[in-house]
Amino acid sequence: MDTGNNIQYLMRPSSIALLGCSESNVGGQTLKNLLSNGYQGKLYPVHPKHETVCGVACYKSLMEIPDTVDCCVVALRSTLCEGAVDEMKEKGVKAAVFYASGFSEVGKEGRELQKRLTEKLRESGIAACGPNCLGFINFHDNVLLYSAATDISSLKGPIGLVSHSGSICIAFQSAHRGAGFSYNISCGNEAGLSVPDYFRAMIEDEHTEIIVGFLEAIRDPEGLKEVAKLAVERNKPIIILKVGRSEVAQKTASAHSGALASPANVSDAFFRQNHILQVNSFDELNETCELLLKLKNIPLAGPAKVSMTAISGGQLGFCSDVAAEQGLTFANIGEEAKSRIRAALPDFATAKNPLDVTTALFDTDAYQECVRALAADEETGLIMICQDCEANMCADEIGLYRHIVQALCKVRDEIDKPMAVFSPLSSGLVQEYADTFAEHGIPLLQGAHESMRAAALYFQWMQYRKEVAEESSTASEAKVPFEFGTDRSLSERASKALLSAYGIPVAADILVSSKEAAVAAAENIGYPVVMKIDSADILHKTEAKVVKLGVGSAEEAARVYDELMANAHAYNPKARINGVSVQEMVDKGVEVMLGMKSDPVFGPCVMVGIGGIFVEIFKDMSLRLAPVDKSTAMEMIQSLKGKNLLYGARGAEPADVDALCDTIEKFSRLAYDYQDRIAEMDINPIIVLADGKGVKAVDALVVQREAE
Amino acid sequence: MDTGNNIQYLMRPSSIALLGCSESNVGGQTLKNLLSNGYQGKLYPVHPKHETVCGVACYKSLMEIPDTVDCCVVALRSTLCEGAVDEMKEKGVKAAVFYASGFSEVGKEGRELQKRLTEKLRESGIAACGPNCLGFINFHDNVLLYSAATDISSLKGPIGLVSHSGSICIAFQSAHRGAGFSYNISCGNEAGLSVPDYFRAMIEDEHTEIIVGFLEAIRDPEGLKEVAKLAVERNKPIIILKVGRSEVAQKTASAHSGALASPANVSDAFFRQNHILQVNSFDELNETCELLLKLKNIPLAGPAKVSMTAISGGQLGFCSDVAAEQGLTFANIGEEAKSRIRAALPDFATAKNPLDVTTALFDTDAYQECVRALAADEETGLIMICQDCEANMCADEIGLYRHIVQALCKVRDEIDKPMAVFSPLSSGLVQEYADTFAEHGIPLLQGAHESMRAAALYFQWMQYRKEVAEESSTASEAKVPFEFGTDRSLSERASKALLSAYGIPVAADILVSSKEAAVAAAENIGYPVVMKIDSADILHKTEAKVVKLGVGSAEEAARVYDELMANAHAYNPKARINGVSVQEMVDKGVEVMLGMKSDPVFGPCVMVGIGGIFVEIFKDMSLRLAPVDKSTAMEMIQSLKGKNLLYGARGAEPADVDALCDTIEKFSRLAYDYQDRIAEMDINPIIVLADGKGVKAVDALVVQREAE
Repeated sequence: MDTGNNIQYLMRPSSIALLGCSESNVGGQTLKNLLSNGYQGKLYPVHPKHETVCGVACYKSLMEIPDTVDCCVVALRSTLCEGAVDEMKEKGVKAAVFYASGFSEVGKEGRELQKRLTEKLRESGIAACGPNCLGFINFHDNVLLYSAATDISSLKGPIGLVSHSGSICIAFQSAHRGAGFSYNISCGNEAGLSVPDYFRAMIEDEHTEIIVGFLEAIRDPEGLKEVAKLAVERNKPIIILKVGRSEVAQKTASAHSGALASPANVSDAFFRQNHILQVNSFDELNETCELLLKLKNIPLAGPAKVSMTAISGGQLGFCSDVAAEQGLTFANIGEEAKSRIRAALPDFATAKNPLDVTTALFDTDAYQECVRALAADEETGLIMICQDCEANMCADEIGLYRHIVQALCKVRDEIDKPMAVFSPLSSGLVQEYADTFAEHGIPLLQGAHESMRAAALYFQWMQYRKEVAEESSTASEAKVPFEFGTDRSLSERASKALLSAYGIPVAADILVSSKEAAVAAAENIGYPVVMKIDSADILHKTEAKVVKLGVGSAEEAARVYDELMANAHAYNPKARINGVSVQEMVDKGVEVMLGMKSDPVFGPCVMVGIGGIFVEIFKDMSLRLAPVDKSTAMEMIQSLKGKNLLYGARGAEPADVDALCDTIEKFSRLAYDYQDRIAEMDINPIIVLADGKGVKAVDALVVQREAE
Repeated sequence: MDTGNNIQYLMRPSSIALLGCSESNVGGQTLKNLLSNGYQGKLYPVHPKHETVCGVACYKSLMEIPDTVDCCVVALRSTLCEGAVDEMKEKGVKAAVFYASGFSEVGKEGRELQKRLTEKLRESGIAACGPNCLGFINFHDNVLLYSAATDISSLKGPIGLVSHSGSICIAFQSAHRGAGFSYNISCGNEAGLSVPDYFRAMIEDEHTEIIVGFLEAIRDPEGLKEVAKLAVERNKPIIILKVGRSEVAQKTASAHSGALASPANVSDAFFRQNHILQVNSFDELNETCELLLKLKNIPLAGPAKVSMTAISGGQLGFCSDVAAEQGLTFANIGEEAKSRIRAALPDFATAKNPLDVTTALFDTDAYQECVRALAADEETGLIMICQDCEANMCADEIGLYRHIVQALCKVRDEIDKPMAVFSPLSSGLVQEYADTFAEHGIPLLQGAHESMRAAALYFQWMQYRKEVAEESSTASEAKVPFEFGTDRSLSERASKALLSAYGIPVAADILVSSKEAAVAAAENIGYPVVMKIDSADILHKTEAKVVKLGVGSAEEAARVYDELMANAHAYNPKARINGVSVQEMVDKGVEVMLGMKSDPVFGPCVMVGIGGIFVEIFKDMSLRLAPVDKSTAMEMIQSLKGKNLLYGARGAEPADVDALCDTIEKFSRLAYDYQDRIAEMDINPIIVLADGKGVKAVDALVVQREAE
């Protein structure tokens, strides 16, 4: 059976049975929520000892209910949940909420209990929320299978929330900014339905415009990937607040939910690559919802740049700092816009962006003309208006700004560029202004940081929309066959052979087993050459002194051959030696490191960094999930702090960045194709030669997964 | 005359004349503010054309007023202000507020007008606020020499604000969190009184507990330095929000106020070194005020580490992330605390910090015991309690948490460690809780980021208090005499001689003018040596090919002598050559760069970075104002991302960091002593040898200031 289809019985049940329902427990609280918030379906409390609960007739057991039951609320302790599923199956129940804790969040026994519950739910096709949760609220249909006391009147709206933490469900609902909710789902341990299932239901839901997730873990990355793409196509942004960036929080989360933790840069890469927006706080979340709800349907008609106005130089300065900090770029407005602004404002004003409108505070025509000029400017993508709106303004001040608020609403209807108004201090808003702006579909944000973050996320969303629209369904290429052999760590030559099979240029080499052959190989390649022991048993070649650079003559080549063999033997007498690899000495270039590791949740990741010390000491590297295409590879390189080293910094020749991008793409393809086989892989270094001359992998290591 | 003493007549005048006062202008608005907010002194509007203004008898001129006048409100345009000062002087007026714009903020003419006004004010001893400002409010004495309509009832409190931006004065007052204000000062262009004058008045003021500054520029760093120290001694924190961190904002600020801009890292260093707290947003400012007002008198009784509790794993995880991001460290709580917590909480709870109190939500005894256990823990410096308090909570929920709020208030009275409560979402607070916490002196913060930032600033303030208390008044050493000569750029040898005079070890060298002397010098120093042309006219020695490293024999030394002379001549035939400097070849070590530059506002700054690429590409350097002591030098080194390169990273020997700190101190002393003479200076590189072996400056450059 398919739980996916049954989710409708969970979200919009016509009849609900509440198992283990007493007035004083979570079952009773759920019944009260349903009764007091106008639920329209049938309600059947079930408890062996009660005649009625909250005035509703109570049944001794589920089977006794003389009607079909769409959904059960299970207010029973953890050990009784399996039995409840058996009964539901027998009764033909299609959906359920399990409140109980005592599952995977409490150790081994709980994990086993949950595994069995999951199995039973799958078998029976029951779409289930929880366990270890508060349940959920469907605001538009007055369905509250929710164990915390709540009043949903005046809370209906377009925001759908899914949260691993029930406490966050309560808090976020209490901190709402007025837009209202479609769903508030405390999903708990996801034993039945998972986060992507809820997201999908909300994407399909007519009331939901924005989807918000507070996530402690990503349990189903493939499912999330799939719905995230659908969300972009339907223009319903998914915004995630992911907890567990810090080490301390990862420990807390794993104690709380027992879920595996990935490093923050891996989940960041996952969200970025799958077109999911990310915020760092609830305040950012609130402002981003406000902005996107109002602007997501206004396409970006210029570059991703901001034009900003304020009636105060001080506030403009402050907001400019914050905009820069949030990575926003200001539009370099054109001459036409400037001359219109000059004509509108007094002489002492400066026609530039960001724009201090000076006395236009008292001249709404001038104010409107400034906004019109910015809207008509080609460089301007988004207009951000800084307007004081602090909740405790005195009446005189409210009167003073009222005409600006009205003027902005009027000009909004004349222009077609997106525009938002923000108050730089976040201590509540003047309700009158908020109402006026809302009537005209103008977002009113609070807090400079949160407002600028929301603006950045508007641009990000427009970029996602573009990316998904342009995505071509490239036929995935076939895996290149390769014989890995049985060594856990492949020798350098074997590792390079694998890279080579995927089209990555490697330094030419010849494997030899005698002095004479070494000399012949060196003459063949051309002096100077590099000579190295090739052995899967000696991974740290420098430490073992089995590498020699710049071998310049036949005599030296012969001598080095003996020396390396002796050193290898001294270092590890048991090492199996394939021979000595005689290699071309690669020209000077920029040393880059490519790495691959396997994340337990998200699978193979690729990393790029500029060699050695920059990766090791400065942690200057960029990470994405495999596979990546060339443009993502370029994005990775551009995000390196040391990227200028590739572009001719310090008098060097610019390096072949295009070839490096190409290599990253191939390397990621290899990592992806053989993710079941390869545990770790790196090329360290790959030399990026001068522009047009390509790259060459000089050393490489592939480590296979241990047999399971 | 001393304007400093007259500031009392500005802040608390017994009689006020309002020059150029009409009902419809800023003078009339000021009069209305005074009348409607209960000002107790005498009021004399002055205008040639009115009989009364707002019902108050009006005088034709200042001289006609038949009484002494303490303070004048000047509601005249800029060009009339000088004349007004003449009249005030004649009348014996002691203080004034100038509202007019049209001074230094509008170009050359305005700057000259302001210069003349400043001069006249100094001569007459008038303590003046402005021009180009809104004036100020003294809340406790009902003095509103303030041109924006306002109502100060219920706003009296302990926060004193000084702002360059009038608009911020209005906004910050409207966004207050309830603590209330002592002063709200729009200081404008500081033609008369400057920011430090106001700060000093507030430090002396009995009502002011916290001083807040919104600054676009620092016009009097020496004055600020002095009052900042006094502020720490009196335990009245100064908290600055400095605008102009970004390039865009610096341009805006200079257009707005005409003030010079310093890079953000220079002003950051100034604030840090002078014990001034810094915030990045108004929200941080509000929460920091709330926390410090309640906790600044509770000394830090443990290390600067936090213990945190929450009733939700999800929120705890989120807040842990934010705490880590804000640089807070969690206390590693001891066994005793853990066992007390274990005894108090159910089995499935984990006794660790941060602490999820799980079901203690329903068990206030357990909750209190957890807090007590943390308070008794030696590692805990500050207790942060995460408690939902969102303004839109429903009544049931408010009831649910009420007993926790009360329990926390009770336990507060039992413990002596500082404790704060914070709501992780900043969308307003439940008033009932806010009132209850306030009664017990417990800070109630909102917003996870702002709360953690406020906690970090509590620790910072305690650190400042400690530093100032321990500061010894070291007798400043005498300047070391040095003959700079007339060259704008000193030659390498001359530069190193100056360093050497200040006790900085430099590579030994001998200047020679012949081949023979070069060989003799090399033998004297011992091979290998370095040979370089010494000339104040050739600064880029590598480019000119006039440096040779590793000269190993007499023969080579002779040959190199000729070669360098020839290269120098080829590079710049007009260069005056002092000769060839034969230098010791310094042992391997870590190459560090020390630099000095002169900031137009703050004076000489010193910078340290680990050589070459790290400074150039990664901008990894640390900056402070000169002079710095050894402990500050150590703080500079610790803030480098690449610091591990000094501590034996990548298998190197640990370097002599102590000697480096010593050198930074001496270098900064030199920079400070000769700030009037030296424009720029650097040692690049100074080699930091293995631990115990000291440092050696290998190359140096001193550039003198141009004659003015």
